[in-house]
Amino acid sequence: MDLSQDIEVHSSPQKAEALMSRMWGRRGVFTCTIGNTLTSTIPGVSDAGDTPELTLYTPSADVELLVHGRTLCMDGIPINPGGIPTPATVTMAALALSGMPMHIVNGGVKVLPHTPYFDVGGSCGRDIRGGDAVSDVEVCYERALIIGDSLARSHDFLVASESCAGGTTTALAVLRAMGLIEENLVSSSSPNNPRELKDSIVDEALEAAGIGFGDMRDDPLEAIRRVGDPMMPANAGLVVGAARRVPVILGGGTQMVAVLAAALAMDPSVRDNIMVGTTRWLINDPNSDMVRMVRSLGDLPLAAIQLDYSDSPHDGLRAYERGYVKEGVGCGGSAIAAVLSSSGEVSCARLLERIHSDYERIMEL
Amino acid sequence: MDLSQDIEVHSSPQKAEALMSRMWGRRGVFTCTIGNTLTSTIPGVSDAGDTPELTLYTPSADVELLVHGRTLCMDGIPINPGGIPTPATVTMAALALSGMPMHIVNGGVKVLPHTPYFDVGGSCGRDIRGGDAVSDVEVCYERALIIGDSLARSHDFLVASESCAGGTTTALAVLRAMGLIEENLVSSSSPNNPRELKDSIVDEALEAAGIGFGDMRDDPLEAIRRVGDPMMPANAGLVVGAARRVPVILGGGTQMVAVLAAALAMDPSVRDNIMVGTTRWLINDPNSDMVRMVRSLGDLPLAAIQLDYSDSPHDGLRAYERGYVKEGVGCGGSAIAAVLSSSGEVSCARLLERIHSDYERIMEL
Repeated sequence: MDLSQDIEVHSSPQKAEALMSRMWGRRGVFTCTIGNTLTSTIPGVSDAGDTPELTLYTPSADVELLVHGRTLCMDGIPINPGGIPTPATVTMAALALSGMPMHIVNGGVKVLPHTPYFDVGGSCGRDIRGGDAVSDVEVCYERALIIGDSLARSHDFLVASESCAGGTTTALAVLRAMGLIEENLVSSSSPNNPRELKDSIVDEALEAAGIGFGDMRDDPLEAIRRVGDPMMPANAGLVVGAARRVPVILGGGTQMVAVLAAALAMDPSVRDNIMVGTTRWLINDPNSDMVRMVRSLGDLPLAAIQLDYSDSPHDGLRAYERGYVKEGVGCGGSAIAAVLSSSGEVSCARLLERIHSDYERIMEL
Repeated sequence: MDLSQDIEVHSSPQKAEALMSRMWGRRGVFTCTIGNTLTSTIPGVSDAGDTPELTLYTPSADVELLVHGRTLCMDGIPINPGGIPTPATVTMAALALSGMPMHIVNGGVKVLPHTPYFDVGGSCGRDIRGGDAVSDVEVCYERALIIGDSLARSHDFLVASESCAGGTTTALAVLRAMGLIEENLVSSSSPNNPRELKDSIVDEALEAAGIGFGDMRDDPLEAIRRVGDPMMPANAGLVVGAARRVPVILGGGTQMVAVLAAALAMDPSVRDNIMVGTTRWLINDPNSDMVRMVRSLGDLPLAAIQLDYSDSPHDGLRAYERGYVKEGVGCGGSAIAAVLSSSGEVSCARLLERIHSDYERIMEL
């Protein structure tokens, strides 16, 4: 298992090595849990969509890309302002090259995807500034737990991921409610991370919810109910249900850190089956601190796929090197899983080639 | 592979043997596709529920039993008039003993189950006497096809089944529209099969839909749209999507024959991966002819689990021997799959023991 070219480990190298050897050449399953929070429509919060309203279409459009290779709920593909493409373009390539099966979990969206999906009884989240953000949190957690258990009976490992625009703001709120990060270390899909705006929204949300820093340390579902988003309870349930049986890669950045915090608080016994998988782009982000965020949850493995768009012929992709997008839709986790499940047959070089050909087809270049 | 005690083959023994040897000791997945049709609320049509209205709760209650071991959407468990328990009691035992993972597919129900499920965009079906019975048939078929494909990537075989009260009447209508059976050979969950009532409903439905015998031979989705139920397109898509990759057991009676007819018309190439799995009770039913129905679709394997309740201490179970219930919720198919996937470790004797202990727990006997 020589991974040095493709995967770099940034935390708990021994645990990472042990977990990755259990996934080497084995049968994985990719999942993407989608959700909407009206928080994403506050102007300036989310760049995951060309306009604030389009951020509500982004999760469903992302999974349509994964399932059909094109979007159906909107024209074109989800882009950040400036035409920078969704990270689902990486996930598509990882799934295609590895042949990994994929399932969508609908945590609660405003715009339904034109795909099959697991329903867990969730609905679109409210603006967290009201302090009452998500309905049916426990039902969604419990049902997703059953899905995670079922999928783990048939696979050797599971990848959990998310698409939920506005989700770094809700993640920050939940992480503060749980007392896990005091400073704002969270990332953004824009290099001009609107920290002050996010901080003020989170402050307002916590106040409306009557939560002080750390008040919800042992009650993640209540933290999510008040100031989170509907991707979170479904994804936390999925992670716990699966990680009781098999290794789980949490593919993502800040948002998956919030999911991980919730999962570990719900069932600390799953800790040894957990690895966070992200991208080199997020690790290199000067405006956030993924390594510190993961370490705030304890001694947990963190690995990053070494994809590099520096030499890409396409502006939209090279923008990732300048801090745009960086993570989402499990792009890092799915790429790591593709390398592992294929015993290294799938490499960053092969992924890049496939991403370019998919991108040119989709954008009709 | 000595199956003589547990499974009897009633059609295409060589094909049956070949398919069963591909499932022997292998990893299967059980699915149950649920649907409602308002046809079940016509008094006298369906005994799958204590009253006509309760038939709308039966599919969701059945899958709640499978997932949770108890019902949540209603009190007690689904029973036929007289207190005869749902065949989900058999399926529960087969799943528990084999450890097979299970997924619910919601083809379109009136009462949602308190379980996770795959959504395919379907909704409750209308009374077929209107001749316009099911919405979004193609969407549901296509989405379920994707689910079947995904599940078949991770499993060596798949079991498809159904719970849809009133479904033998809609099945008869679709089989006539497709020109497959002229006589009424279909079964019923009652030994007093209300043939004349079913025939007159089907006649009225076909007339309202403007369909003559066999008019829809090559267009099963249109037949379903006009006179079928929403379990059918989802289940047919699931079967085709899975059977393109792996063996599929269609677990059930008349209703699964209609699903099979639709699946084969949509993609004849899947024929060699198909086996029908049912119960000795249905095979022995003097009021229907399962063997002839399957043979009407060509040279296809048909196998039956040899469960026998003659010596059961419980009246409700012994009633199966007198022609009550007989099939449904994949009870025959799941039991056959449990025997095969466990390499014969799970036997009819062990199934009976488990069914009795589950039944006593559920009924608080």
